[in-house]
Amino acid sequence: MRISELAHATGVPLATVKYYLREGLLPPGQATSATQAQYDESHVRRLVLVRALLQVGGLSVASARDVLASIDRTTGPLHRVLGAAHSALPPDGSDVEPARARRLAARWGWRVHPEAPALRQLERALRALDAVGHPASDERLDVYAGAARRVAQVDVAAVPTRSKEEAATTVVIGTVLYEPVLLALRRMAQEAVSAERHG
Amino acid sequence: MRISELAHATGVPLATVKYYLREGLLPPGQATSATQAQYDESHVRRLVLVRALLQVGGLSVASARDVLASIDRTTGPLHRVLGAAHSALPPDGSDVEPARARRLAARWGWRVHPEAPALRQLERALRALDAVGHPASDERLDVYAGAARRVAQVDVAAVPTRSKEEAATTVVIGTVLYEPVLLALRRMAQEAVSAERHG
Repeated sequence: MRISELAHATGVPLATVKYYLREGLLPPGQATSATQAQYDESHVRRLVLVRALLQVGGLSVASARDVLASIDRTTGPLHRVLGAAHSALPPDGSDVEPARARRLAARWGWRVHPEAPALRQLERALRALDAVGHPASDERLDVYAGAARRVAQVDVAAVPTRSKEEAATTVVIGTVLYEPVLLALRRMAQEAVSAERHG
Repeated sequence: MRISELAHATGVPLATVKYYLREGLLPPGQATSATQAQYDESHVRRLVLVRALLQVGGLSVASARDVLASIDRTTGPLHRVLGAAHSALPPDGSDVEPARARRLAARWGWRVHPEAPALRQLERALRALDAVGHPASDERLDVYAGAARRVAQVDVAAVPTRSKEEAATTVVIGTVLYEPVLLALRRMAQEAVSAERHG
């Protein structure tokens, strides 16, 4: 297909597609003349992923380029695409040493890469609770972990395995856009449970 | 106790305590002379809540004043304190009509106030998924709701019922500081589940 058809197929404005090409987010098409090139389904999938990274994930162009390079380098199990996409998404885990988070992952028998940013995010969140004098007990975290695991099972089941791009797109969308869903549901459930107890 | 003792008891700098008094976030003490006043345990509880609203909840002084007024007005079941605290916390639910969110709450038998901000947060999050062509199915949301309910049960059980201030402090801390805990655990669980399936 031509670049105008690529734009049409994905709903991305033509000028934006050209910008992504210039920025190296989209690989060049197969040149058919000095001014024309042909694009295929791999460009469609890549373009959908680029949009997800920039518009859903809120990544900068430079960060999106890093994620794409990381996904392109990824070989072997599809599982690694998840790690590459996760690592690129905000919030970054800062530089805390995630000692308690690693211990908790081991407690639940979870295989998590020792440098996974989510471990640092958890550690930072637990320290914030310590700092306000409301430390999280292991028992409360066990319940949270059980709930997180149930949610993660449907999340992972929803990831298509046909291509790395499709998998990464679903991970980015699933990670970022379902977070506010889960948080809103938790607040609604708090209200419902509180009404049952105290209402 | 004197104002310096109030500051010491709560770990809040004296100048900050005076600032909260001037801003009306903390009610004045019982005057014992032209320059001195006595404070009691109710001031300690209120000061801890003010800190939670400003530092944990990230509220402005004006918003914190509104929440406190709302909590002070709250009579009847303790349950309403939760609503007052929730309504004040970011993110605001914007002005979407939460038709699907209300239908979902009814589907799960959850008693949620029809104007609860969490309904609008959910509606906005669901629309964002629609907009990227990945609409959330009721079946997936059922799993999320079940997980959210389990978490909400420990959250609500953790709220002390001794005073409105203590309840509101725990709700603010529990709502805001456990959100990143839950999100980090979800990402860790995704990695663990993905490793089991594809690793």
